[in-house]
Amino acid sequence: MLVKERLFTPGPVPLPPQVIKALGQQIIHHRTPEFTKIFKEVKAKLKKLLKTDRDVLVFTSSGTGSMEASVINFFSKGDKVLVINGGKFGQRWLELAKTFSLNPINYQIEWGKTYNQKEVEEIIDNNPDLKGILVQHSETSTTTYHDVEFLGKLAKKLDDCILVVDGITSVGVYEVYPEEIGIDILITGSQKALMLPPGLSILYYSEKAEKRLNKSDIPKYYFDVKKEAKKQAEGQTAYTTAINLIIALNESLSLILDEGLENLARRHSIMAEATREAVKSLGLKLLSESPSNSATGVYSPEGINGDALRKELLKIGFRVAGGQDHLKGKILRIAHMGYFDYMDVLQVIAGLEIALNKIGYKIEFGTGVKKAQEIIFSNL
Amino acid sequence: MLVKERLFTPGPVPLPPQVIKALGQQIIHHRTPEFTKIFKEVKAKLKKLLKTDRDVLVFTSSGTGSMEASVINFFSKGDKVLVINGGKFGQRWLELAKTFSLNPINYQIEWGKTYNQKEVEEIIDNNPDLKGILVQHSETSTTTYHDVEFLGKLAKKLDDCILVVDGITSVGVYEVYPEEIGIDILITGSQKALMLPPGLSILYYSEKAEKRLNKSDIPKYYFDVKKEAKKQAEGQTAYTTAINLIIALNESLSLILDEGLENLARRHSIMAEATREAVKSLGLKLLSESPSNSATGVYSPEGINGDALRKELLKIGFRVAGGQDHLKGKILRIAHMGYFDYMDVLQVIAGLEIALNKIGYKIEFGTGVKKAQEIIFSNL
Repeated sequence: MLVKERLFTPGPVPLPPQVIKALGQQIIHHRTPEFTKIFKEVKAKLKKLLKTDRDVLVFTSSGTGSMEASVINFFSKGDKVLVINGGKFGQRWLELAKTFSLNPINYQIEWGKTYNQKEVEEIIDNNPDLKGILVQHSETSTTTYHDVEFLGKLAKKLDDCILVVDGITSVGVYEVYPEEIGIDILITGSQKALMLPPGLSILYYSEKAEKRLNKSDIPKYYFDVKKEAKKQAEGQTAYTTAINLIIALNESLSLILDEGLENLARRHSIMAEATREAVKSLGLKLLSESPSNSATGVYSPEGINGDALRKELLKIGFRVAGGQDHLKGKILRIAHMGYFDYMDVLQVIAGLEIALNKIGYKIEFGTGVKKAQEIIFSNL
Repeated sequence: MLVKERLFTPGPVPLPPQVIKALGQQIIHHRTPEFTKIFKEVKAKLKKLLKTDRDVLVFTSSGTGSMEASVINFFSKGDKVLVINGGKFGQRWLELAKTFSLNPINYQIEWGKTYNQKEVEEIIDNNPDLKGILVQHSETSTTTYHDVEFLGKLAKKLDDCILVVDGITSVGVYEVYPEEIGIDILITGSQKALMLPPGLSILYYSEKAEKRLNKSDIPKYYFDVKKEAKKQAEGQTAYTTAINLIIALNESLSLILDEGLENLARRHSIMAEATREAVKSLGLKLLSESPSNSATGVYSPEGINGDALRKELLKIGFRVAGGQDHLKGKILRIAHMGYFDYMDVLQVIAGLEIALNKIGYKIEFGTGVKKAQEIIFSNL
């Protein structure tokens, strides 16, 4: 019997047909006016996406590549940084900081929670030599939203401390305007709300951060921001870029800008709210106290293995993510980021109800769907 | 009037239809048995390509990423290395070695020439503390072939010196079997003879090189070979990989292995010989004294700007590459690497004859084509 697999994972996410079409084309050469024209269009659209006049760099790498670029270009050995560490990707900031000989303060948060404003203020007050704050805007491993506006206000007041934000699952989900918020470095990846295959990462940096480029004493080559910025200002890249992904990015950014950034953020907010309220109405518990609009993490019901539940979902056509590290087997993560609409949310909730019943967690069919329908209907 | 643009550039090269089809598909998730199955197929094919039983790593980056990985994983600060520097990419080895605090001996060769065996032997004899030899198998900027067999024999005799080969435009052009030759690290990129878009780089390392992994004191994260090797042995990657390129690589490797590695090398050898003899019969001078089979570099005729000649070629449908750095405006580089057959060679030579006449360099039509035909015919 036909079962169509639908990706509801927090990256990669489904590709729009326009992107698939752009990918499945004969290659063009990158050292040409034709490519430069496309690359400049991409740059103009990235600037609109982030509401900035500054150039936004593109690297051929996964998002982790731009995380590394943030650490090795804008800091020096021994620099004290605050890592807001609330999950697997917070942990990655910490590892990067340690690898490249920064001096990180590990502010460890229980997975599923966000930071405490007072505590962060205290750390900043007690460390006048702090050179940076590293955080996830949306911590994908725990589907948790960390408020960066508050951190932006704090960082703005400090002369030599920059705010570095991993926006891998927030850019394209929220309105993330680094200059309004006070973000100095903002990175993202292609395979999330930008609706592309993985292979590109994106890096914005502020004027304040730019001053660090000449000071940093950490060796860099492939991820050399200064060299890359110079080439990209001319519509080229220092090293051969992932040409077909750039061409596809041009398409997906058009889709995003055509929808409008406010509409885009609203759609994600409603999809997220509908998902959260639906799963709660089924008696399930949310993983996060500060849930992100990119994906909803939810505990598997008492006594039911999350991975077994995911298998039931897969049998009827839904691939959702599980938990990482100590959350393995305990949770589901259902994405609603990028190429998803309201009816997709209804579909996955309907499927979840079937999978739950199948695995022995009895609920009345339609309970969660009804809840999601009501929220969507009231927002049409 | 319709003019079809044909890529005759030494990377990117044209994509086979099978690859285009593989690229233009809906995405699948990488943390799945489905992806692992494909990735393991890719690995098995890479092993056949390089005739090795060792795992061959894949990174999401351009070729330069794997060049960096070679330097930062297999050497330590202060390590003395010999850089055989005969062009833009030799220069890149030198820059990488300097950036990461190695101690390079810059063996500078005039562009278009290859190394002198005696001189290299002397350097090695005079530097018993030499930890590595870094070379291009095919230096793309000068279309020059550097004999790695000779270097392999030298390196094999040394206990603690490894041979690091940039095979970006040689793997898939020649039969490059690192274990037979004595290459310790061999890297390549996706957008050359592997007939893919850019975005993947590939790294083989020998048992001798592997011993270095625990000794290296250079910080690494994104390009951490040890971490990557552990994950890739399980059919996964440390960081999200360029999923659609991996799927397309599975297709292009099948094309390569179906043709057979010996046939593949023979085809490239004949295409290269036909091109070289054809341009020589037109009175043009080859750029390289040791020409590579991946692309043919040729000087523009006396008094004719190479870039103007390239424009004439582009007008009738052929994009060839020009010169880099001090060779700018002086040369053409015509690729015959990857998805090219004999008739493609005849076509570009016929076009070159037209472009040469158009720009005022009078030759009898068919002169070069005839030469190429004869060579191809005698090899059918």
